[in-house]
Amino acid sequence: MKVPATIIWQDQCLKLLDQRVLPREVRYLTIETLEQAVEAIRTLAVRGAPAIGVAAGYALVVSLKNVAAEAFETTVMANARHLKAARPTAVNLAYAVDRVAKAGVTQCNYDALVAEAESIHAEDIEICQAIGEAGKPLIQPGVRVLTHCNAGALAVSGLGTATAPLYLSHEAGVEFKVFADETRPLLQGARLTAWELSQAGIDVTLLCDNAAASLMARGGIDLVLVGTDRVAANGDVANKIGTLGLAVMCDYFDIPFYVACPSSTYDAATPSGDLIEIERRSDTEVVGPNTADVQAYNPAFDVTPARLVTGLITDRGLITTLDEATLIRVFDTSYV
Amino acid sequence: MKVPATIIWQDQCLKLLDQRVLPREVRYLTIETLEQAVEAIRTLAVRGAPAIGVAAGYALVVSLKNVAAEAFETTVMANARHLKAARPTAVNLAYAVDRVAKAGVTQCNYDALVAEAESIHAEDIEICQAIGEAGKPLIQPGVRVLTHCNAGALAVSGLGTATAPLYLSHEAGVEFKVFADETRPLLQGARLTAWELSQAGIDVTLLCDNAAASLMARGGIDLVLVGTDRVAANGDVANKIGTLGLAVMCDYFDIPFYVACPSSTYDAATPSGDLIEIERRSDTEVVGPNTADVQAYNPAFDVTPARLVTGLITDRGLITTLDEATLIRVFDTSYV
Repeated sequence: MKVPATIIWQDQCLKLLDQRVLPREVRYLTIETLEQAVEAIRTLAVRGAPAIGVAAGYALVVSLKNVAAEAFETTVMANARHLKAARPTAVNLAYAVDRVAKAGVTQCNYDALVAEAESIHAEDIEICQAIGEAGKPLIQPGVRVLTHCNAGALAVSGLGTATAPLYLSHEAGVEFKVFADETRPLLQGARLTAWELSQAGIDVTLLCDNAAASLMARGGIDLVLVGTDRVAANGDVANKIGTLGLAVMCDYFDIPFYVACPSSTYDAATPSGDLIEIERRSDTEVVGPNTADVQAYNPAFDVTPARLVTGLITDRGLITTLDEATLIRVFDTSYV
Repeated sequence: MKVPATIIWQDQCLKLLDQRVLPREVRYLTIETLEQAVEAIRTLAVRGAPAIGVAAGYALVVSLKNVAAEAFETTVMANARHLKAARPTAVNLAYAVDRVAKAGVTQCNYDALVAEAESIHAEDIEICQAIGEAGKPLIQPGVRVLTHCNAGALAVSGLGTATAPLYLSHEAGVEFKVFADETRPLLQGARLTAWELSQAGIDVTLLCDNAAASLMARGGIDLVLVGTDRVAANGDVANKIGTLGLAVMCDYFDIPFYVACPSSTYDAATPSGDLIEIERRSDTEVVGPNTADVQAYNPAFDVTPARLVTGLITDRGLITTLDEATLIRVFDTSYV
């Protein structure tokens, strides 16, 4: 893999690969304050649910570096709240921040915060490896995979989630093709997924989001593989806008639709997908100087019902029975 | 209506509204040679199946202005062939060029060419009015319509095809909402449809193509209304890439899916949609400086099977039985 690291933690210093300028430029942001971290998360300099979690964990650490002991607990809680508000949909953000905050408050100790953030980072890398192992059997020679947005190495700190099976199969010498949806409005597929897969030497073809049905109708896709920002208790999945449409098309064309996710994405506290808060982003991502000057509808995510999901590819194996009882058992929701 | 005319024929001179620079600039191209016409059609300065037909009819006229009598017939045929090759998918292009060529060859007379091109233009305007009347009953107060690409006034010379029912209902004082897919890669929805509807005072909201499913899932769309570049004998419709996906979503979410078209779009000579030649356009429409440098899949059109079409809104009424016998009877295919 020749993909640059998304998150670098070295000598108590946090650096984030600025994904807003990829693939034109490989540039790192140094995060020294809470506001810089919130801004980086909000403007998608760092994006992808697991990467946001890892980055936010370190960001909480950074924000507490020079805080006096008597202000420690209240500052931990205030900063944690501020970080968690940066983006509402990804459960990993709240999960990671809460874990680091809890370690800090319990032990009232800066080093405990660092250790917890580093644990989350290391777990993230291990989890990607496990997801890759669970999904690798699906990536057989000659298979044609369609993916959407970026649930790749750039979205996490390891092999990625949806991309992990692709990287492991590629390393094992399997030849296959990937089709990457460009993923409007922010083009994460065109800028990030197509770039990181091609950097790794995987055969990748870019298409407009609305060309997917055409490719499926021609028999050109064997399976769809995406990530997710949150899995509701019943197995409904929130993911980048456009995912629901793909799942509906897979249903119509009888193509398997897989969702890769770390256990931390499972949100037992949200009974079903319709209760997941969906971030509405600015009209200016859709409306600009080259378009008519009108209002826009621009949700960042949509929700795919569990019945359209063939299987979840997780660090605890491939799960093809998507009901609440199975999911709660598999995911061990003790952290909720 | 305050939408500028797409095609102007005045004093034996052809002017085309350059749709590549809309909505930033309202600029007309003067077409004086065959090559200029082919270039304008090929690069989408003029686009939309009916408008291409009307423009190509006049373009054939223009290209024969100073041709000597003895070379007339061979030049008509050669220029017609050249024009028809400019874009392969729209049946109107070949239809209009053949009609004008036939008039020219039969009467071996420049004025006959002019008269035939003007007839096609006048018919186009009448046809849009008739499509509007046929579709107007669907546009009831409060209805929320999703459209894709531009089958609007800019695509023809009258009220548009898919937009004709919208313009007539709006003129009649009906209040409704239109959602316009931006329609990647060339953004005809964002640049043209949203612009022309907002110019006419219609409430229009722009969305990324992949946000349509989300809007449908929320119960936010009552019907989908698109145009078509070619209707096969069995009722399968070719239209802008992304249309098939919308039709599949309509099927899943139980939303009516209507296709507006002039009779000339019906192609009795092509038995079914899988036999329609689909134009593959340049990778550079999808791949650019802001994306990874990879190959692209970029078809301009896709084919929606007749079984997913609720009805055809035509200048011969609303047709809800889509089988070959009905369509051949309705469309009177004597011109084939």
